[in-house]
Amino acid sequence: LAVEALHWGEDRLRIIDQTRLPGEVAYLQLETLESVWQAIRRLQVRGAPAIGVCAAYGVLVGVQEKAPGTPGEVVTAVNDAADYLATSRPTAVNLTWALDRMRATVDESEAAGAPCETLLEGLEAEARAIDTENQALCEAIGREGAALVREGAGILTHCNTGSLATLASGTALAPLFHAHREGRHFQVFADETRPLLQGARLTAWELMQEGIDVTLICDNTAAQVMREGRVQLILVGADRIAANGDTANKIGTYSLAVLAKAHDVPFYVAAPYSTFDLALTSGDAIPIEQRDAAEVTEGFGCRTAPKGVPVYSPAFDVTPAHLITGFITERGILRPPYHEAIAALPPTAACEAPQPILESLK
Amino acid sequence: LAVEALHWGEDRLRIIDQTRLPGEVAYLQLETLESVWQAIRRLQVRGAPAIGVCAAYGVLVGVQEKAPGTPGEVVTAVNDAADYLATSRPTAVNLTWALDRMRATVDESEAAGAPCETLLEGLEAEARAIDTENQALCEAIGREGAALVREGAGILTHCNTGSLATLASGTALAPLFHAHREGRHFQVFADETRPLLQGARLTAWELMQEGIDVTLICDNTAAQVMREGRVQLILVGADRIAANGDTANKIGTYSLAVLAKAHDVPFYVAAPYSTFDLALTSGDAIPIEQRDAAEVTEGFGCRTAPKGVPVYSPAFDVTPAHLITGFITERGILRPPYHEAIAALPPTAACEAPQPILESLK
Repeated sequence: LAVEALHWGEDRLRIIDQTRLPGEVAYLQLETLESVWQAIRRLQVRGAPAIGVCAAYGVLVGVQEKAPGTPGEVVTAVNDAADYLATSRPTAVNLTWALDRMRATVDESEAAGAPCETLLEGLEAEARAIDTENQALCEAIGREGAALVREGAGILTHCNTGSLATLASGTALAPLFHAHREGRHFQVFADETRPLLQGARLTAWELMQEGIDVTLICDNTAAQVMREGRVQLILVGADRIAANGDTANKIGTYSLAVLAKAHDVPFYVAAPYSTFDLALTSGDAIPIEQRDAAEVTEGFGCRTAPKGVPVYSPAFDVTPAHLITGFITERGILRPPYHEAIAALPPTAACEAPQPILESLK
Repeated sequence: LAVEALHWGEDRLRIIDQTRLPGEVAYLQLETLESVWQAIRRLQVRGAPAIGVCAAYGVLVGVQEKAPGTPGEVVTAVNDAADYLATSRPTAVNLTWALDRMRATVDESEAAGAPCETLLEGLEAEARAIDTENQALCEAIGREGAALVREGAGILTHCNTGSLATLASGTALAPLFHAHREGRHFQVFADETRPLLQGARLTAWELMQEGIDVTLICDNTAAQVMREGRVQLILVGADRIAANGDTANKIGTYSLAVLAKAHDVPFYVAAPYSTFDLALTSGDAIPIEQRDAAEVTEGFGCRTAPKGVPVYSPAFDVTPAHLITGFITERGILRPPYHEAIAALPPTAACEAPQPILESLK
């Protein structure tokens, strides 16, 4: 991929500052534990998988800073770093999960009596493993979904689900990157995705970096583009998927699914197995978080609505399973009846990370 | 109405500067012909009916400035003012139409040998007539549509179609103002209406001024609000309506109509008879104007999309007649089959103004 949103090399962590996109591509060297904490806190790195990977490398940065001389000091440094990083975005489940893997690695080696150097090597190997597993998972989703992306097709997507959010080839964008590498030509319509404009700011930018033909549209224009016959496929990500296939994702996804049905356009959700929450029998059980009104009324540096106007701004909506043509997972494409297909999905090592519902692809 | 976007009194013209809403309610005294021209040009007054009414009074301002001493000088002053004002927004059909009425009035009186004072009185009477006819037309639409607005209902609207755009009670908002005056309580959901945010900037503001319960939503949230069962009626305006009922209106209207159908929500278009263009057999003949990409990529004072990104931004879309529950006109509510109902509509004196398709409710 043309965009490398995070790089670990020669014991150094570098990220693209996502808050300055698309105006500026600014790289940040995260040389202190505090700078890693700030980067996550300030959304300079965002998206559930990205936060997990960044935090794992962040533990290495924290350990380097302490320069521990004994195995016990290494363990303390890891736990201190993990405790601290966990406070950067407390509700991000991927963050806790990645940090716990780092703790477990060092605890295990230390208990086995390994020397300092082995502990440090083990920590770096674990961070790289988290990174690599995440990449493999996205690659697999891309491979499984690429066949849906036909030569000459128009593909509509919503929000941001690519290399910035995942530090890999993404979820809903992964099939596009894959098909592009295979030499297919197609046109992507990116919903700008109000209120935070992730589609305009991030998706359009990263598709352009890759040389993929992308056209930006306002969310209210998707229906018109479908009516004109210019969309043959809709690809979106997911925050959480219930056992029956009902899918919570960024607000506006449900609207697209209804419009897709009305225009006979296939509507696919791309997500790793970890996004399926078998404890939820249907989407009705998913709580809907409300976003801050200011994101709608003054999101761009100037006020664009009257002071005090009530705003209804749910962070996401739930698309009922019957509107979904299929789920693109790293284990293949699931087709209805979803209850059976989802129940039959075998968990994989790379898929143990639970996806947080409130934080994932913000 | 609480909002008086234009006031003519004691030979003076005053408007609300709509470009400063909703941040500030600033009144402008238009004391020179040039200030009237600038107000129309700079969208300080906008909306087809509003432009027509403002231009008619603007001719009076121009004549005052010249202080003509003979009937011939009055005619010259009127024609000079009209020629000049016509250049303020050349494609606004209502503008030309109103100016032509002012010219015809003075020409007729002058040809009949009327003295200066009579000519001036006739001009003021004609400007007031244009204003009053426009108000009567909006009131009639409000009266006809008010019965659709039930106690306790949720009503969703798009763009801005009220007192700012029409200098009267509006088109799609007129039934809401009417029902509110009758004491009914209801909740309005106002689509923010990307890219220019007329819903956020203007509709939310003017409903709040009137004391009507309004909630602002992003365009992509309309489907979710419908799914929650909170919308019992959708009211939109129209730019142009074909003889079969196909309706061109602000981009996003078609999307709402499809969503309304899927959620069994009645979808009404409110428009004066003059909006029906019987020369168009269907909506297919309506050309779709493209808006400037910058409205989408940097509409709020800062750039929110990558430089050079292609943007598809049609100004409006066409809603096919079969998705429309009814048309609220000043002559009553039209029901399917529309071809017959529209053909049977008798023209009225107040309805001769053609609605320009590219300018009307911008």
